[in-house]
Amino acid sequence: MLTLYYARGTCALASHMALEYSGAGYRTVRLDFSKNEQRSPGYLRLNPKGRVPALVTERGVLTETPALLQFIAQSFPQAQLAPLDDVFALARANEFNSYLCSTVHIAHAHRMRGYRWADDAAAHEAMKKKVPQNIGECFELIERELLKGPWVLGERFSTCDMYLFTSAQWLEGDGVDVGRFPKVADLRQRMLADPVVVKVLAAQQA
Amino acid sequence: MLTLYYARGTCALASHMALEYSGAGYRTVRLDFSKNEQRSPGYLRLNPKGRVPALVTERGVLTETPALLQFIAQSFPQAQLAPLDDVFALARANEFNSYLCSTVHIAHAHRMRGYRWADDAAAHEAMKKKVPQNIGECFELIERELLKGPWVLGERFSTCDMYLFTSAQWLEGDGVDVGRFPKVADLRQRMLADPVVVKVLAAQQA
Repeated sequence: MLTLYYARGTCALASHMALEYSGAGYRTVRLDFSKNEQRSPGYLRLNPKGRVPALVTERGVLTETPALLQFIAQSFPQAQLAPLDDVFALARANEFNSYLCSTVHIAHAHRMRGYRWADDAAAHEAMKKKVPQNIGECFELIERELLKGPWVLGERFSTCDMYLFTSAQWLEGDGVDVGRFPKVADLRQRMLADPVVVKVLAAQQA
Repeated sequence: MLTLYYARGTCALASHMALEYSGAGYRTVRLDFSKNEQRSPGYLRLNPKGRVPALVTERGVLTETPALLQFIAQSFPQAQLAPLDDVFALARANEFNSYLCSTVHIAHAHRMRGYRWADDAAAHEAMKKKVPQNIGECFELIERELLKGPWVLGERFSTCDMYLFTSAQWLEGDGVDVGRFPKVADLRQRMLADPVVVKVLAAQQA
């Protein structure tokens, strides 16, 4: 049995969706970031990074969204969550997920978590100010170059769509109008109507 | 024939090393960041992100170091650059590479590229100031938890070692004494003595 540690509103949503789409047996444990539960001694023993997601497997604890997404796809290949049979296409999927992780998520994190990169309150404000521009530029690239349509990889639904959906949920909070990105907005709407997504979002809010 | 676009002193070194270890036929093209060649119209057509590395393949251009490392490992499986036959071990490799990409590299980038996340010169100084602390904490985690020894994944040499070597080359510039991390320092020394690494470093400096 797999156990996913997550918190509401975080990138762990992507792995939660992948688990649900995979057909895997899994359970979830919610951490409350407002109580700083991700820094509790018990959780730090499990995941010394003090972040989410963390996936407890029978062979150990895995972290980092791109790694979890491929792990879930490879562990449950019948669900066809990634192009596992095509080295180039899989690289394309990993390229997309890595971009979300190391550029889009980082740009987003500078709005609320500037303390990670500077100790100065004025610097945090300066970072926050630039977030709409940076997130806007990221999603312009996604809309123009990376999202083939109707899904990220084209005709084939994949973990990339789950991760993009997750990142796109932050747009309004980051001060960016999703209406600027019709393909992203359309993907988000289609996914919001998917019973799997509805189920996962409801579970996280329950 | 694969073509790798790189610049000196960048994370593209990891992919360059992987290509050399793989036995692949490849050529390299060096971009001069001091001349802003990564933002030239010609390069932006090839890689709209305006970054390195970019790997030109017969099926298209791939970017993002973690994606490139797995692509090279999977394209040349006889070189055994990643635990491709073990889904969990491969996830462990991807977890490590994703951490270098989205946490260690980002912490490093706040020293010289603070302009990415704020427009204010004082904020850039505040970011720069925190880099030794952040990089120090990242490498403490690597030393204590992630680097099994003698290689990152244990007995098996992999792309993780190439990427860690690349990131560890930045320690001195980031104001962090590698002597604090004996396992990392030892790995770096062993790799510096490897003819493949010597060849790649010489090619980048030629």
